[in-house]
Amino acid sequence: MSQDNTTVAAISWTGHGDGFLTLLDQTRLPEAVTYVNCDNVECVWQAIKKLAVRGAPAIGISAAYGVVLGVRDGAMLPSGAAAATVEEAKQAALAACDYLATSRPTAVNLFWALDRMRGVITTLDEPSSGRVGERLLAEAQAIHEADRLQCAAIGRHGSDLLEALGSGVGIVTHCNTGMLATGGDGTALAVLFALSERGMKPQVFADETRPLLQGARLTAWELMQRGVDVTLICDSMAAPILRDGKAKAVIVGADRITARGDTANKIGTYGLAVQAHYHKVPFYVAAPTTTFDLTITFGSDIPIEQRTPEEITNAFGRRTAPEDVQVDNPAFDVTPAELITGIITERGVISPVTEEAVRAMIGA
Amino acid sequence: MSQDNTTVAAISWTGHGDGFLTLLDQTRLPEAVTYVNCDNVECVWQAIKKLAVRGAPAIGISAAYGVVLGVRDGAMLPSGAAAATVEEAKQAALAACDYLATSRPTAVNLFWALDRMRGVITTLDEPSSGRVGERLLAEAQAIHEADRLQCAAIGRHGSDLLEALGSGVGIVTHCNTGMLATGGDGTALAVLFALSERGMKPQVFADETRPLLQGARLTAWELMQRGVDVTLICDSMAAPILRDGKAKAVIVGADRITARGDTANKIGTYGLAVQAHYHKVPFYVAAPTTTFDLTITFGSDIPIEQRTPEEITNAFGRRTAPEDVQVDNPAFDVTPAELITGIITERGVISPVTEEAVRAMIGA
Repeated sequence: MSQDNTTVAAISWTGHGDGFLTLLDQTRLPEAVTYVNCDNVECVWQAIKKLAVRGAPAIGISAAYGVVLGVRDGAMLPSGAAAATVEEAKQAALAACDYLATSRPTAVNLFWALDRMRGVITTLDEPSSGRVGERLLAEAQAIHEADRLQCAAIGRHGSDLLEALGSGVGIVTHCNTGMLATGGDGTALAVLFALSERGMKPQVFADETRPLLQGARLTAWELMQRGVDVTLICDSMAAPILRDGKAKAVIVGADRITARGDTANKIGTYGLAVQAHYHKVPFYVAAPTTTFDLTITFGSDIPIEQRTPEEITNAFGRRTAPEDVQVDNPAFDVTPAELITGIITERGVISPVTEEAVRAMIGA
Repeated sequence: MSQDNTTVAAISWTGHGDGFLTLLDQTRLPEAVTYVNCDNVECVWQAIKKLAVRGAPAIGISAAYGVVLGVRDGAMLPSGAAAATVEEAKQAALAACDYLATSRPTAVNLFWALDRMRGVITTLDEPSSGRVGERLLAEAQAIHEADRLQCAAIGRHGSDLLEALGSGVGIVTHCNTGMLATGGDGTALAVLFALSERGMKPQVFADETRPLLQGARLTAWELMQRGVDVTLICDSMAAPILRDGKAKAVIVGADRITARGDTANKIGTYGLAVQAHYHKVPFYVAAPTTTFDLTITFGSDIPIEQRTPEEITNAFGRRTAPEDVQVDNPAFDVTPAELITGIITERGVISPVTEEAVRAMIGA
């Protein structure tokens, strides 16, 4: 396992089709850099559910590797025994797809990756269950590598766009959208890394992102590792920073984007978009084309995951709210296209954000 | 000490002029209901600084009692010995005023209460230092009692106003502005308590209020104690609640209000005001007239306290951000009068909020 933090691998696979998946346990960052090895599907499901791995692209990649583990996971078959035939291997892999799809409801990359794996499973013609595993591993690795290249392209397009704001510009970001959230440099953070590598010295304000503090724990950590200037703030502190001109742009990632450009992303994104609009600051979303769900037009049709109250009431190792208090804890919110200045994809920038422009860039 | 939580005393005095001040230690709520007894000025200064007592009116009241303790506190005199003469007693009390004024810079009630105590000290004509203590205690108790009556009047005026929104209306509040923050039922919370007592069944959404979670720890607790329906949310969750019509009003307290109505209050208030404005939801401030500072016109002239980074990086017993990360941690922000629908005082409601209307209600 690499201990070089500048190239920390959030997701890696060891061995061949019968190998195992290693995930950086993001719930323990930045206190501890520890890894979880998964050799069965349940382990991957739990890692996604508990956010040991999170970020829409990273969830998709991890699920694809999870399907590879499904081939020899007896728990995926009614018999409870590992697949003995090619047909059983395919059946187990399909069951793994169905099971992994139940881990989290909002990020569309999960369903996209599982659909791609299902397509391979149903059409493959291999002579042995071992070869089934090899073929599925090759597909998962292709998904992983494509994501890495997409991140690089998003970084290029986004830094072309934001470079115009000048050197040392303040930029607000929310949640974590970097190396930990993807197969590469990230989405919104890839843009900030690319800006930094071009010598533009962005001054990043990282929202801590309650309740799970991905901004404090992960984004601040990633930016510091790569030498990018970062100031940690509470989510409620972005508004005066935008008012006072300390930040001239906002950039975030996405978990699902509809055909008209409505964007589901980490709770707090919508409020930040309203702040940017009020203060006349451009608001950008950075996401690979795999984050688009053209089967949905309006953001109100995106299912929003509700998470447990304890994430708010017991978040820091200590109870910080009364027993039995009622809690509302949506994991995501939806920002309407009208509040988004541009969506930065690996193919280019969609701006202004309209259904026509989205379909022109993304549609088949 | 009363253990009846529905009438928990955040601030109480035991004995005569040589008695002591008891403060509910709000840093330990809701886990533990514990009290701090102060018989010297330093103890009160520390309690204000560390937020064992907080809320603009409560800080003013506590500081007034702190001045009473100054009369017999040798640390307030160059000699280091307790005052032996009336002149020394007055000198020590004035020194206590100066020292207590350094505890927190933003809440104007602190300076208002200390100025009122100074006025008494400089004009009093008592035959003994013991009588000086009695006279100052009477003044502190008068400040305390006046605040209690102001809270009740704010509750009346505010509930007259909000009753029009109908039964079961959703209302967002921020930070803590109740029994713990004042000498009575509170400011913004007094309005919600009064609405509840009128049978209007308000549905309160309490922002947790990062970094120190006064909303989660104190407001949710107070409302539950009094049987008011409350749902705890993260600060970033108010925006979709306002968008979806789940809340039809926002009400907050204040730490200082200028002559034109610009209002300094807990960090996050300004962002919430922008959200309310964007979603066309009325935004109310509730505060006694002692919170106004007519010597200042523009909110940009209010000093904003910066607090330690650890409140964000190490809140509640666990480090949740990288070592040495840069942090911005303003305790307050300023909401301009233009975003405030009305200011509810004990004398009535200022609406629309203009310098003319403020001076007409508050000015001498």
